[in-house]
Amino acid sequence: MHEEPLFDKLTLIGLGLIGSSIARAARTHCAVRKIAALDSSPRVLARVRELEIVDDASGDVEQALGDADLVILCAPVGACGAIARDIAPHLKHGAILSDVGSVKGSIVKAVAPHVPPGVRFVPAHPLAGTEYSGPDAGFATLFKNRWCLLTPIDQAAFERDHSNADNVAPSLSQRAPHAENDAVDALAEFWKRLGAKVEVTTPEHHDLALAITSHLPHLIAFNIVGTADHLEKVTESEVIKFSASGFRDFTRIAASDPTMWRDVFLNNKGAVLEMLSRFNADLAALQRMIEVDDGEGLFDLFTRTRAIRRGIVEQGQDTAAPDFGRPHEKA
Amino acid sequence: MHEEPLFDKLTLIGLGLIGSSIARAARTHCAVRKIAALDSSPRVLARVRELEIVDDASGDVEQALGDADLVILCAPVGACGAIARDIAPHLKHGAILSDVGSVKGSIVKAVAPHVPPGVRFVPAHPLAGTEYSGPDAGFATLFKNRWCLLTPIDQAAFERDHSNADNVAPSLSQRAPHAENDAVDALAEFWKRLGAKVEVTTPEHHDLALAITSHLPHLIAFNIVGTADHLEKVTESEVIKFSASGFRDFTRIAASDPTMWRDVFLNNKGAVLEMLSRFNADLAALQRMIEVDDGEGLFDLFTRTRAIRRGIVEQGQDTAAPDFGRPHEKA
Ligand SMILES: NC(=O)c1ccc[n+]([C@@H]2O[C@H](COP(=O)([O-])OP(=O)(O)OC[C@H]3O[C@@H](n4cnc5c(N)ncnc54)[C@H](OP(=O)(O)O)[C@@H]3O)[C@@H](O)[C@H]2O)c1
Ligand SMILES: NC(=O)c1ccc[n+]([C@@H]2O[C@H](COP(=O)([O-])OP(=O)(O)OC[C@H]3O[C@@H](n4cnc5c(N)ncnc54)[C@H](OP(=O)(O)O)[C@@H]3O)[C@@H](O)[C@H]2O)c1
Repeated sequence: MHEEPLFDKLTLIGLGLIGSSIARAARTHCAVRKIAALDSSPRVLARVRELEIVDDASGDVEQALGDADLVILCAPVGACGAIARDIAPHLKHGAILSDVGSVKGSIVKAVAPHVPPGVRFVPAHPLAGTEYSGPDAGFATLFKNRWCLLTPIDQAAFERDHSNADNVAPSLSQRAPHAENDAVDALAEFWKRLGAKVEVTTPEHHDLALAITSHLPHLIAFNIVGTADHLEKVTESEVIKFSASGFRDFTRIAASDPTMWRDVFLNNKGAVLEMLSRFNADLAALQRMIEVDDGEGLFDLFTRTRAIRRGIVEQGQDTAAPDFGRPHEKA
Repeated sequence: MHEEPLFDKLTLIGLGLIGSSIARAARTHCAVRKIAALDSSPRVLARVRELEIVDDASGDVEQALGDADLVILCAPVGACGAIARDIAPHLKHGAILSDVGSVKGSIVKAVAPHVPPGVRFVPAHPLAGTEYSGPDAGFATLFKNRWCLLTPIDQAAFERDHSNADNVAPSLSQRAPHAENDAVDALAEFWKRLGAKVEVTTPEHHDLALAITSHLPHLIAFNIVGTADHLEKVTESEVIKFSASGFRDFTRIAASDPTMWRDVFLNNKGAVLEMLSRFNADLAALQRMIEVDDGEGLFDLFTRTRAIRRGIVEQGQDTAAPDFGRPHEKA
């Protein structure tokens, strides 16, 4: 359990569900020697001090960032560009900058231009969360056995491609590719220490894969809960009472943080709309099967969807207990 | 715990998840003195004998039905009409006939014409289930704190309305309404004894309410899992690996029994298609918000959907534990 720390100092920016879970998990697993926290909200920082989950939650930017070896942005996706711009002057040479945003392409576009020479930027996304937010919602085992995707970019190529863009400092030029590789390896070790399984992919592929495994399911859940909310023939109290018959599982997803999800849909628009149009085409076909009483077609589809579930339970991504292992009181 | 039994003999037809759970719960709560089981599948009956959850699983129809006070059809919705026709001659005068089908209007249409004079038919639907089927999947606490909807019909009126239909025996005529009321009360007591909360409504309203709280959520879950199954750009192994980010919760629903769900959609077509068309209209509006970067509109919708979730947790229809209380190993 008490292995050598991987970094001397970790600084987390945004101490909500994810940020505070990283703080707790990093301590539990001795992943770093010291942890500092920054947050735009003094209320959050005050709560973090009460919870005693970091060493420095004073909010002093220079103190928090000046000697940090690993800095992780844990704020909403839409805020990360401005945060990167603001903290850039305070980052130490050799530091690794990362994030946990649920979208990667737009984070790269927003953050990379501000990364100073000598700082290695490695975008990341831990696939773990709950429907709660804020520093009280976090817990040390959130990342255990979950995947964390790293989407490293070729910073040198990025700068070449964007060297005419207004927001790229033209001085940022030659970078050693091996330094980037070392940073990816070091960040991978960090996430493994927190209990996660790590996979490396591109920002573009990440955004496509997450559009189907996360963003579209959330969109659909928000939508169906919205539909139920404005029916005249069925009251809201009936919807709530009878929710255990299926609807309930959508409401947890649809209770997720509105700020986070607004940012996700605005920042992964292309991939989400692509997956949505496939979903719509499939739904039209399914609707047609019902209209024409195609029992065999329905049966075949429902049999295929069972197989995917089996794969998920086998790979340990969910429990095989009935009803998700929800408590059924013993009689 | 050991109260007076409510019925002398209960006979269950179809010993799958629901039927075998009723058997277990009725025993645990001493709701009846004896239980008999019938099933079209000898394999199921053999397993029921091994499990020793009923007193008579011999499969002898006359023996099972001749002296039964309460007979509950627990077979797929599409099978109930034929079962009612076949068992009608064996039902004793004064018996209550019920069912557990997830759709009520079509069950009434299929079963009521076969109900002999002197037998009271009270359709019911316990809103409880898991994604598993068969006699091994059942458990005694399945109905605890769940709703059971009773949808009594005016059998006399039903017969008047359908007296010209081919499949209604014209001899079935005058019935005493108070006998029907007694049967509803008796069945309500039975379900309460099993731990359920009971509500009485009409078959039509049941089918509309369940279309939004159960049938549409299942349809959507089957559909999105189907969409994920045939993408070229994202592999199935990626979908399975990254499922914990939202998709996973849909796969449990989409793993539900194909026969049961085929029957539900074919038998509640009207209400399901009505809810689906509202869902589609809402989804088109949501898609438009994403297309035009309407962050405020998205934020407002996502904030409203959160409130419904709170109602469900407050009414005890779900746990407030993060991630549904799924086990997160302690570090
Ligand atoms: N929740 C999930 O399921 C999940 C999973 C994986 C990744 N993520 C990603 O993790 C990130 C954070 O999500 P979360 O669920 O942890 O959200 P959260 O609980 O709402 O926490 C976000 C924190 O960042 C703070 N913040 C907002 N703007 C800031 C700024 N400009 N500078 C510094 N701090 C700022 C917030 O303060 P205020 O509360 O005062 O605004 C809050 O304390 C997002 O990028 C999200 O995409 C989330
Ligand atoms: N599962 C749920 O979540 C849920 C919730 C509430 C209500 N319901 C309703 O409960 C009923 C049963 O569902 P379930 O989940 O318990 O299904 P299940 O586990 O598949 O059990 C159905 C049982 O009925 C048997 N059966 C099929 N046709 C029959 C026939 N003609 N005569 C006698 N037995 C027959 C089946 O045998 P074979 O296996 O050999 O076919 C099986 O043993 C359905 O009407 C469903 O709508 C289900």
